Order: sequence, then C-alpha cells, then structure tokens
Amino acid sequence: MEKLQRNERISALQRILCDYPGKVFTLGSFADLLGCAKTSVSEDIDIIRGSLEKTGMGTIETLPGASGGVRYVPMSDSRTTRELAERLSAELSKSERILPGGYLYMQDVIYNPETVSEIGRVFCTRFYKKDIHYVITVETKGIPLAFITAKYLNVPLVIVRHYNAATDGASVNINYVSGSSRKIQSMVLSLRAIKRNSRLLFIDDFMKGGGTAKGILELAREFDCEVAGIGVLIQTAEPAKKLVEDWFSLLTLYSVDEENGITNIRPSISQEDIL
Amino acid sequence: MEKLQRNERISALQRILCDYPGKVFTLGSFADLLGCAKTSVSEDIDIIRGSLEKTGMGTIETLPGASGGVRYVPMSDSRTTRELAERLSAELSKSERILPGGYLYMQDVIYNPETVSEIGRVFCTRFYKKDIHYVITVETKGIPLAFITAKYLNVPLVIVRHYNAATDGASVNINYVSGSSRKIQSMVLSLRAIKRNSRLLFIDDFMKGGGTAKGILELAREFDCEVAGIGVLIQTAEPAKKLVEDWFSLLTLYSVDEENGITNIRPSISQEDIL
Repeated sequence: MEKLQRNERISALQRILCDYPGKVFTLGSFADLLGCAKTSVSEDIDIIRGSLEKTGMGTIETLPGASGGVRYVPMSDSRTTRELAERLSAELSKSERILPGGYLYMQDVIYNPETVSEIGRVFCTRFYKKDIHYVITVETKGIPLAFITAKYLNVPLVIVRHYNAATDGASVNINYVSGSSRKIQSMVLSLRAIKRNSRLLFIDDFMKGGGTAKGILELAREFDCEVAGIGVLIQTAEPAKKLVEDWFSLLTLYSVDEENGITNIRPSISQEDIL
Repeated sequence: MEKLQRNERISALQRILCDYPGKVFTLGSFADLLGCAKTSVSEDIDIIRGSLEKTGMGTIETLPGASGGVRYVPMSDSRTTRELAERLSAELSKSERILPGGYLYMQDVIYNPETVSEIGRVFCTRFYKKDIHYVITVETKGIPLAFITAKYLNVPLVIVRHYNAATDGASVNINYVSGSSRKIQSMVLSLRAIKRNSRLLFIDDFMKGGGTAKGILELAREFDCEVAGIGVLIQTAEPAKKLVEDWFSLLTLYSVDEENGITNIRPSISQEDIL
C-alpha cells in the first residue's frame, strides 16, 4: 500500500476499526499494514479514542496480554439513546400503524438499516461487557436487529428456524408454548450452529409473554449453553410477569386502542439504566 | 460538542461516514456539527477520499446540486474481491460441509458478520450506480446479506415471507414454482412495504433454477416496481439456463460428489466483471 500521511492514517485506522467493530487488532498489525512505527499507530489510536469519546459514539478498548490489542466498541450515550427511544415511541404510536387485532405495522422501522444500526448500538452498549459468544434470534422479524448486534459485538449470528430445512443437517428440535397465544410452536437449530458451553445473547423485536425467550433458554440447555442476556426492542407492559426473569427493552407498549386509533408506547429506560 | 482538532475531526468524519454509508451529507451540516468552517470540512473530506482510494476500500462521492453533498460508498477492489471469492470457495468446498442430498452447510459463513460485510461490499460495488430504492430478499438465509447490502446502499430492506402474518396488514400473495424442486410455494409481501414505481435489488444466498428470483420479478410487477438487479452469493452451474436473464454471482457451484466428499465450487467472476 502507498505510504500514508498521518491524517490519512487516522482516516484509514478509523475506517478499519469501524468496519470491524469488536475485533481485536494488535498495534503491530496496523503498523505493518500502514508501513509506520508502532509508536505512531499508538498515538493515532489515542487521537481516535479522544474523538470517539468527545462525540459519545463509542470507545477504543485496550486489551492487555499476549492476545491483546485494541478494539472499537460502537456505543450510544445516554442522551442519544433517550432521543432514539423517544423518536421511535412517537413514530410507532402513529395511528396509521394500527392493524386489525391491535397489532402494529413496524417493518419499515425494524428493517431500516439506519434505525436498526442505532438500536444495535444500544444493545452493544448494554451487552459488550457480558462476554457474549453468539447472538441468537428466531426468524424472521428480529434478524436485522440481531445481525447488527452480532456485527457490533464481533460474534457469529445464529438464526433459529420454525421448521427443519435440508440445509441444517442434523438439528435439535424443541417445542415451546407461545407466552401470549398459548400456541405450541417448534424451534429448530442445526447441531453445528453453536459450540457447547457458549454464552448466548438473545435479540428480538418484540416480547409479550416471553414464551419465545423461554424457548431459547430451553434450546440453549440442549446445547449446554447459557443465555447471558436478552434484549428486545419492545416489550409489552402486560403481562408484567414474563416467562423469563431478566431482560432489557428499549420501549414499552402499554396499550393499543384500535377503535380510537391511539397507541401508548414509551421509552422503557431511564438514563441510568443504559450502561 | 467539544471543539475538535483537525486529526480528531478527520476521525469523527470518517466514523460518521462509515456509520452511515450511502447517506448524503452536506458540507454545511458537518461544519455545523463540528463547529468549523466549510472549507476545513472540504479539506478533511479530500484527505479521507485520498486515504480510502489508496486502501481500495471505498470512495467519497460528491453529488452536485441543491440536494447535493458527499457520501461514502463502501467498495471492494478487484484484488480484494478475487481473494474473498477464492477464500470462500476453499472454505465452502470442505468435505465436512456436505449434507445428505448433496446440500452444503453454510450457515456459519452466511451469518458471520465479517464475511457477510465483505460480500456486501462486493454487491455494493456492483450495484451502487443502479439507483436502487429497496433491497428485497425472501426469508430466511439471505437476510443478513440483503441487510448489509441495504445498509451500504442506504436504502430500506424488504423481507418477503412464505406465510402471511398478522403484523403484515393487507398483503399481496403470489404463487411461484421453485426452479429446482418444481414445488409450488407462496410469497407474501405487505402492501405497505414498497412504494409503487420503485427500483428493487434482489439479494439471496443461493440460486439454482432461478424460481425464487422469477417470483420476485412477478411480485415486483404487482407493485408496479422494477427489479433493477439480482445478486447472489452462489449460483449453480447447472441448469445453465435460469428462469431469469441477468444476475450477478460471486461463486459458482459445479458439483457436489456426496459419495467421495468432493465439492467443486469456484469464483464465478473475472476481475473485469466486478465493476
């Protein structure tokens, strides 16, 4: 690669760190790539860390030891998270989103790359210290959120399906009861998908009774794995008691008044809750 | 925001551009955000463009006119694309991936955020000039690839499902014949999901007969939309004649010899083909 000036080097380093969030790079590997001294890279990284912290959008973590190095952690500070939660609450409360049966049309929000990325930063901020090995979700609507969270944490994404497919190979199949509709459903996961003794983060778009989350806990047990975190975009206020104990949600849905076209949805978080 | 030094400003600009690929920013909005003159931002952007072009991983496009500004286009240069295609060919040819029926286990590859992002850059390089309004895919395995492509192109993702769900609202349902298995399947898309007269990019992990792609063409017609591009990770060599005319694939699968555990999969692209 052509030799870069300091300014260009900072641009290149920031670009690589942003493209591979969560990935640990040694200063030596950067020095080799950019053809400069390790001390120069170290100074560059300090500048990038300073810039990130001033803008509140992430940090550069230094990991000590033989396998150590630096990694970029995308974050969402309290103010940004609060503004996001309020903006999404207003957007999702629009009366035209109400569907027959009191459901809400949300696909334009939960499939929008920019919005999904902003929500993913909140999940990353919340869970990056939990030593997560995989992000897991159940098809279909939570996949973009789960994918971006996996990208920010630099771990593989695992998608649980409702039906067995030829491309799964041998798989584990469990039945679970949906917490809200009391319907029996199936979850299928390929035996190759996760290693034993891993720590999983379950991400989904919506939690009502918590039946799907409980299903994931059971599935994890079949793989000798632990669910180390649960993050959802929206939880319902009722039932207050879910089938799982501990979860994080960005928004809470209190009510949908189909007749009058009024949805009550509010940020579930206080500023202190986020980190 | 605290005032930044030039180096910190370049870091912050590069970070924002990377976080919102494809999004058009005016120089004025950057100047306001960073509390500096537009001429300074303009110089910073030139440095970032230079750095990106030297490292071959993207460019900064300048869009003229009243709604103009600059946007970051993530790219994959010919050498990087070729190396990626060769690495993936080797990885996917491993005998332990062969499943009963000659299927290949690929979930660890197509759900891996780093790999998915690298493939997404190839699709972005290929399609960013095609004036795409939506990236569309059919659940489930192509969703991460489609999502990252949508993120890089800064357009909404649309996910077509196989079954109608209450959260879709009113929807369009079409039947199509799978090109390989000749099975009749359904595609369902919410009427709210795409605006009429849009240009769609169909992204998927695998194409054999092209039946799914043809189904997407038909679905697009129901919405008065046009499929302006088709990109798949892997196409099969046979049947050479697919149900659609024009598509891009990164890899070609020639054969899976289940008995002897030999898979023949190779890059489908020549270096000239990519741009």
